[in-house]
Amino acid sequence: MPDMPTFYETSRPIAMGMEGVLQAPPVKLLDHGFIRAVDYMGNDEAIVQAARVSYGAGTDTPSKDEALIRYLMKHRHTTPFEMCEIKIHAKMPIFVARQWIRHRTASVNEESARYSIMEREFYVPEAENMAVQSTSNKQGRGAVMPPNTANRVRENMRAGADREFDHYEVRMSTYDLSRELARMGLPMSTYTQWYWKTDLHNMFNFLSLRDDPHAQYEIRVYAEALAAMVKAWVPMAHQAYEDYRKNGAHLSAAELEAVRGFAKGSGAAAARARDKMTKREWQAFMKLVGLNDTALNDMDPQK
Amino acid sequence: MPDMPTFYETSRPIAMGMEGVLQAPPVKLLDHGFIRAVDYMGNDEAIVQAARVSYGAGTDTPSKDEALIRYLMKHRHTTPFEMCEIKIHAKMPIFVARQWIRHRTASVNEESARYSIMEREFYVPEAENMAVQSTSNKQGRGAVMPPNTANRVRENMRAGADREFDHYEVRMSTYDLSRELARMGLPMSTYTQWYWKTDLHNMFNFLSLRDDPHAQYEIRVYAEALAAMVKAWVPMAHQAYEDYRKNGAHLSAAELEAVRGFAKGSGAAAARARDKMTKREWQAFMKLVGLNDTALNDMDPQK
Amino acid sequence: MPDMPTFYETSRPIAMGMEGVLQAPPVKLLDHGFIRAVDYMGNDEAIVQAARVSYGAGTDTPSKDEALIRYLMKHRHTTPFEMCEIKIHAKMPIFVARQWIRHRTASVNEESARYSIMEREFYVPEAENMAVQSTSNKQGRGAVMPPNTANRVRENMRAGADREFDHYEVRMSTYDLSRELARMGLPMSTYTQWYWKTDLHNMFNFLSLRDDPHAQYEIRVYAEALAAMVKAWVPMAHQAYEDYRKNGAHLSAAELEAVRGFAKGSGAAAARARDKMTKREWQAFMKLVGLNDTALNDMDPQK
Amino acid sequence: MPDMPTFYETSRPIAMGMEGVLQAPPVKLLDHGFIRAVDYMGNDEAIVQAARVSYGAGTDTPSKDEALIRYLMKHRHTTPFEMCEIKIHAKMPIFVARQWIRHRTASVNEESARYSIMEREFYVPEAENMAVQSTSNKQGRGAVMPPNTANRVRENMRAGADREFDHYEVRMSTYDLSRELARMGLPMSTYTQWYWKTDLHNMFNFLSLRDDPHAQYEIRVYAEALAAMVKAWVPMAHQAYEDYRKNGAHLSAAELEAVRGFAKGSGAAAARARDKMTKREWQAFMKLVGLNDTALNDMDPQK
Repeated sequence: MPDMPTFYETSRPIAMGMEGVLQAPPVKLLDHGFIRAVDYMGNDEAIVQAARVSYGAGTDTPSKDEALIRYLMKHRHTTPFEMCEIKIHAKMPIFVARQWIRHRTASVNEESARYSIMEREFYVPEAENMAVQSTSNKQGRGAVMPPNTANRVRENMRAGADREFDHYEVRMSTYDLSRELARMGLPMSTYTQWYWKTDLHNMFNFLSLRDDPHAQYEIRVYAEALAAMVKAWVPMAHQAYEDYRKNGAHLSAAELEAVRGFAKGSGAAAARARDKMTKREWQAFMKLVGLNDTALNDMDPQK
Repeated sequence: MPDMPTFYETSRPIAMGMEGVLQAPPVKLLDHGFIRAVDYMGNDEAIVQAARVSYGAGTDTPSKDEALIRYLMKHRHTTPFEMCEIKIHAKMPIFVARQWIRHRTASVNEESARYSIMEREFYVPEAENMAVQSTSNKQGRGAVMPPNTANRVRENMRAGADREFDHYEVRMSTYDLSRELARMGLPMSTYTQWYWKTDLHNMFNFLSLRDDPHAQYEIRVYAEALAAMVKAWVPMAHQAYEDYRKNGAHLSAAELEAVRGFAKGSGAAAARARDKMTKREWQAFMKLVGLNDTALNDMDPQK
Repeated sequence: MPDMPTFYETSRPIAMGMEGVLQAPPVKLLDHGFIRAVDYMGNDEAIVQAARVSYGAGTDTPSKDEALIRYLMKHRHTTPFEMCEIKIHAKMPIFVARQWIRHRTASVNEESARYSIMEREFYVPEAENMAVQSTSNKQGRGAVMPPNTANRVRENMRAGADREFDHYEVRMSTYDLSRELARMGLPMSTYTQWYWKTDLHNMFNFLSLRDDPHAQYEIRVYAEALAAMVKAWVPMAHQAYEDYRKNGAHLSAAELEAVRGFAKGSGAAAARARDKMTKREWQAFMKLVGLNDTALNDMDPQK
Repeated sequence: MPDMPTFYETSRPIAMGMEGVLQAPPVKLLDHGFIRAVDYMGNDEAIVQAARVSYGAGTDTPSKDEALIRYLMKHRHTTPFEMCEIKIHAKMPIFVARQWIRHRTASVNEESARYSIMEREFYVPEAENMAVQSTSNKQGRGAVMPPNTANRVRENMRAGADREFDHYEVRMSTYDLSRELARMGLPMSTYTQWYWKTDLHNMFNFLSLRDDPHAQYEIRVYAEALAAMVKAWVPMAHQAYEDYRKNGAHLSAAELEAVRGFAKGSGAAAARARDKMTKREWQAFMKLVGLNDTALNDMDPQK
């Protein structure tokens, strides 16, 4: 990467905020990872341009750009968002790459451990990210470990990975074992890197799953960094995404029925809806609408 | 298609309801169209089977099948639904096929007007489906036409399509014009047919867009027929789709804020949320929650 | 489109030849169609950049750029070609759009005849493109029609399409028929338009099927115009495509066996291979290798 | 899996050979891996059925089934092959899964190390598969190691993986570290498992890359087992794949020119073509056509 940004003249549409991202240094993540923007295509206007092809001669004046983008997002008219594309270069632990790659509608070129000798770089969490198994969520983390314990386990992690890299190197240097076999013992915390390219619609799908409290912390930090890039790139579309997807919520039929009860101030209607939910669903719903479990009892059951 | 159903012995899992669909005659749609089931793979249990591969030895007892399917649907864990596949044979007007084909994650083999001579079959709507342009919705229909007017336009449609088929045939028989050129004048109401195969997740995406009041009537009837097949095939997944997607609703951040206001009985909070919506959004939201426009004024503004 | 090209400063990589394409006027095709470039991402170097991520520290010096691109193309390492993206705006007859849309790995926003009133624009072939049905190829054209006959049919095509547009307009203006119903009678020669975006790998797949003598002439002219854009955009990759895909050939096992016979100068070996082909395959093969049908008899059958 | 196969009555089309595969025990692969068939849709006739929808009434008699399938394969008419679908359950080392998952057009549900505690199962190659780094191919294996050396390295691999599983278990049992963090140190040789579903066209793409000498041995054994299933399932399509893809070859323009020289017995023409290839290409080409490097000199240079 150049010390001074290089500029070219182009006839393509540009996105000012994203030009700044291209010129910025890579975003460092975890202990050895990063994301850096490589290229992009399109901007907020490109979304509008594609959407407007539907409105040919003879139809009414189109609404303003931002309103149109918000309308498209709200009503899940997703194809115009596919007209924007982004390409990044990222480095991340293999277990993160394994979650990331499940998003199939993207293009990827990854470092190959059959061709290349892997660098001695592996992920060890910061002590503040060392957490015990969650008791309520089989796939999540609970409380953070006490620092002393955390550091003990971290040291054990570091020593284990270092030892496996020692063996990796010896297998190749002393025994000339082929790379594709030697790499088998490396831990899933080993860093890999790739070029990754996707369109804005699929980026929003990625963010909705990975820039989310249910995602593992180690991929979430990548998603957060991507979300910041997207905000700089297509600020209107990003705001629409936040307002209509990220910070909104999907209600089931039973939840919608309960909301209708609330709207009428009818605790009885809400209670009838509750009977159509599992206990867990009801609890999550009460939390979503900002009530505690006993709130329903306080509503007028006669109404 | 055989008069009597043929049975084979198989070691594959079957879906009893879908076996009935396979044996049933094609579902007739519009004036010359149809859908018939050709094959399927998987059933409700196949969804559960795929989801459970995540729960290896050492984890807790899995919850019951239907509860798991509903959990997957609610939380948009979509990949297990991809494990079921359906294949149909359908005949529909070309303008319907053009909407249908936009669902890219499906396999299609369509009749070719380069190879084949098209049958003289074209769609003319029933009088009860002849409607004027909607004044509120640029892409929709308004009121049904008076029967006399409707029939006059229908007769004009029929005569026009017949005339174009006359020309089509003359171009080929008298002038030996190649098929690929002769077909150019045929109307978009001409019937075509195809084999179409998709997985259950993408079928639900199709249904959510096409078995919907915003879809054009002529494709909606196909979507409704497909929905009935899906119900027979995977009744648990279909019910979950209805409860969590079709009959639910997605709320924006502002709408969710209004709902929280309703839940607390606070008209003031709801009014603050209203200010973050367009007028059109607010009206749609009020309708969604079963209130009329003036209802908010009746709530206690002091709260 | 502006009379004078507009330039922006960018840190994105550029492709000089493609900048020229962006500034050029739309390429006019058929009687009312066009293609114009809207945006692009990447260039020949972007392909190399992505391919090289596989070669980490510690491996040998990478080969030169063009040689690497040719190597990737020859060995069907397709993912680096996905790192380049192109977006165009095109206008074409609906029957061409129907063939084009079958390439599923692209993003599309098309003019909607539900929203918009279609312009009175339809395709009528030039006399020189009016051809009779091929006798050897069910889906192809044979000889060009005599000009007088061609013009008679063309006039009939034009009159038919004009008449259907008359009806289309009357149905909407006099009867207020909804657009989505009124458009049903329009011919498949009616022009539509769309924004279309795809990556370079899928563009090559498109070109290999549509910039090909088996493709219908009317889509082939669009493919040829796209091929010219691709040549200006990524000249190295385009040359590799021509050398390794377009102007190469895939041999079956039997054809490869015949080639081995030729290489050894053994007519007997070639004759044995011939027995494994259908007559049609053999004829196509002889044509491919530049021999006539009787040539084999001239080779030494003893060898 | 049941000891005795269970049979159901179905109206679905069946493939006799594939029913046998469903009833057979899983195919064991490597030291702890397997593949077993779970379900399938379609058979050779389903390919024909889909292809024939193109041939409507009024066109000629269709050719016979096998000839049609071979024609489709030869001319890369790929969509009818998408009409067949297969679902398997497989267990394989994570580094194999990482190569496999790059085939994006498939559905996958994989065991999750966030949810589940991984079994102590990891891959250690047999001595006969322990090979040194290839000197000619950066991503390949060379000679097999002497057994003593091989066993020494194997023992080192086994001990390393066992040690990491010890740490994995201690981190969870003693320190209650969350599963998603504890699994980070496990080696890439750890076994994972998944349900995997794809269509026949994409299966052939998978086989062409993975049932190939350039693929790593450890994924090749899975591809070979899948190829055997495909052969039992759709014998005609599989034979066509072998004849037209697997055992055929793609020639570049220069190679095709050389073949034309051979066909005419012209060494001079072949030599001109040679000048358009790299040395490596020429060597590979000579090997492909069964000649040694000096053979060209023996051909008549005058012709």
